[in-house]
Amino acid sequence: MFSVTVRDQMMVAHSLRGDVFGPAQGLHGATFVVEATFRGESLGEDGILVDIGRAADELHDVLAALTYRNLDDEPAFAGVNTTTEVLARHVADRLAECLHEDGLGAGDRVTGIAVTLHESPVARASYERVP
Amino acid sequence: MFSVTVRDQMMVAHSLRGDVFGPAQGLHGATFVVEATFRGESLGEDGILVDIGRAADELHDVLAALTYRNLDDEPAFAGVNTTTEVLARHVADRLAECLHEDGLGAGDRVTGIAVTLHESPVARASYERVP
Amino acid sequence: MFSVTVRDQMMVAHSLRGDVFGPAQGLHGATFVVEATFRGESLGEDGILVDIGRAADELHDVLAALTYRNLDDEPAFAGVNTTTEVLARHVADRLAECLHEDGLGAGDRVTGIAVTLHESPVARASYERVP
Amino acid sequence: MFSVTVRDQMMVAHSLRGDVFGPAQGLHGATFVVEATFRGESLGEDGILVDIGRAADELHDVLAALTYRNLDDEPAFAGVNTTTEVLARHVADRLAECLHEDGLGAGDRVTGIAVTLHESPVARASYERVP
Amino acid sequence: MFSVTVRDQMMVAHSLRGDVFGPAQGLHGATFVVEATFRGESLGEDGILVDIGRAADELHDVLAALTYRNLDDEPAFAGVNTTTEVLARHVADRLAECLHEDGLGAGDRVTGIAVTLHESPVARASYERVP
Amino acid sequence: MFSVTVRDQMMVAHSLRGDVFGPAQGLHGATFVVEATFRGESLGEDGILVDIGRAADELHDVLAALTYRNLDDEPAFAGVNTTTEVLARHVADRLAECLHEDGLGAGDRVTGIAVTLHESPVARASYERVP
Repeated sequence: MFSVTVRDQMMVAHSLRGDVFGPAQGLHGATFVVEATFRGESLGEDGILVDIGRAADELHDVLAALTYRNLDDEPAFAGVNTTTEVLARHVADRLAECLHEDGLGAGDRVTGIAVTLHESPVARASYERVP
Repeated sequence: MFSVTVRDQMMVAHSLRGDVFGPAQGLHGATFVVEATFRGESLGEDGILVDIGRAADELHDVLAALTYRNLDDEPAFAGVNTTTEVLARHVADRLAECLHEDGLGAGDRVTGIAVTLHESPVARASYERVP
Repeated sequence: MFSVTVRDQMMVAHSLRGDVFGPAQGLHGATFVVEATFRGESLGEDGILVDIGRAADELHDVLAALTYRNLDDEPAFAGVNTTTEVLARHVADRLAECLHEDGLGAGDRVTGIAVTLHESPVARASYERVP
Repeated sequence: MFSVTVRDQMMVAHSLRGDVFGPAQGLHGATFVVEATFRGESLGEDGILVDIGRAADELHDVLAALTYRNLDDEPAFAGVNTTTEVLARHVADRLAECLHEDGLGAGDRVTGIAVTLHESPVARASYERVP
Repeated sequence: MFSVTVRDQMMVAHSLRGDVFGPAQGLHGATFVVEATFRGESLGEDGILVDIGRAADELHDVLAALTYRNLDDEPAFAGVNTTTEVLARHVADRLAECLHEDGLGAGDRVTGIAVTLHESPVARASYERVP
Repeated sequence: MFSVTVRDQMMVAHSLRGDVFGPAQGLHGATFVVEATFRGESLGEDGILVDIGRAADELHDVLAALTYRNLDDEPAFAGVNTTTEVLARHVADRLAECLHEDGLGAGDRVTGIAVTLHESPVARASYERVP
């Protein structure tokens, strides 16, 4: 099994609804360092699983659509708590769409996508799915 | 599949019995940087897998019971080599107990616990179990 | 010359006024990883420059007063752009006050305070002053 | 499930053939930070999965055979693109051979080997296999 | 004293002439993680020392002129060993030129430029100069 | 001004005497990640400040004399608290001796030595001196 991972980041504001979030119910923010991993069993003729340059560009575009934003105002998250888990799933779902539309130079080799968001040096969340 | 990871550290002394350990048979010590991961297939209504604040607190408590100690004198490890692998299992087992007792805001969503101990920038060990 | 550094973090929302900030003029947020350094020429009898536990506690308290907040609403920053540079100076000034009030176990040994805020893995700012 | 990971690095030159590589078709180079992970279900009597010292030595030897080299001139890679994925598989295959020849103090406990090569802070690739 | 630091990277091939370099006399390569720091005593009205976006862009352009290259073939380094020290000075000198030409939003506030190149997790070199 | 930094680590046990140390008065331990920096105004003909390979070897030897030890039993530290500050000074003093004896390929170019010991991801201490 092979995997390729690219990393980027985004800076957002948001608030979280629910007693469980304590002081994080107030409007605050985060720098999310985001890692996107593509997995597959085989390589193409060029010796690659996925075009790492296009993968990095797609991740950058997905994050650019959110960075410098207040997620509380984003229609995509209306009525949804933008927890780190939910944001990890959002990014993974967008990357799965990119893979279906563009292939990222991977043909049909990618069998898994995993996204990790580091919200600080001491906390992170991940979501993994099939493309 | 979702996962949430929290990180903390402990500073301990210990020695290891067995020729395989070479100079590490002498009394020495380590700063263990510890990462605890909780995995599960679904999120609760709040959009979380686990209450990350309580998870961090429980990890801190588990490590606080060992930090600034000489593990050679701890009854919990009598007759046991406190290798990085054994300590990873110890921490994972304590966190599984916490999950059973307290739930960590996760209901019955957690299906896996993994603990990694970094003993230095160039060496680490992990243990993974079901709760 | 000796120095001692402690590290912590805070998660805040804010916006920045001025064309130079481009998209960062919108309300967004950041996880600031904060390092506070105390410098001095000599050690006390215990072999320490500063009580590192108290230094860590004071840094934590300074950051706790800001974390999970929208800095645009904080009276301390009324009419001021909360750039990374300005926040570094704010934290350094608060730590200098702590040092004057409490000493942090350092007597009059501390001759310099430096604070660095990492806003992401690729950008940071620092401020250094005499106590 | 237990795992043990060791880390080292190598510095190499190479070029990559194929339009997909864009400017990386030119002769350039990389510092690869390499992590090798050994997995297994049980520990030996000493409380270890694998002799971490021997594992680190073997990884060092595998990387030393490549470091400070131009991989374009290495017979082992004739006609092969030395992508990060291919190099991860090469290192994993060499470590599997070491495990078969020498055991690395692990008896027959190791059931999986994974190798990750970080080519920069923002890109990495991995390969995982059974020994 | 304030400072602002941006980080980027480049991947290059090169060889080094002189017995002191041992095996690094052969053609090999490196990923250099590069940090550029700008220092100054005061902030502008916007609360910034330097336009961090333009600083990051300039650093990226300086590194882009070298990345994916064999430095042995670059006229800029003819007859010069491209040690990490020499490359740090080269990048700092280019950034000083950018500062003179473009100002980077810093007016005449910048009084020092420092550049650090990390050649691996265990080795780095820096060069510091006045603009 | 140029500088060159090498990094290594050591794992030791020790205890600290004095109420200020709280629970760290008990026998415990640490992994110290150690960075040694050499500074100087000029480079030699080869384009280096110091032979980085010899510098790394000397740092390794200095740390090897302490690693896997209980510092409470080391004659070199009799009657001295082995705080992070004191250990940073100890390593810097040993490296200054190496520089006087062996030169480390630096001629008389080195004008400053700085040593940083990271005791955990959140705490470190440094000592800087002239050679």
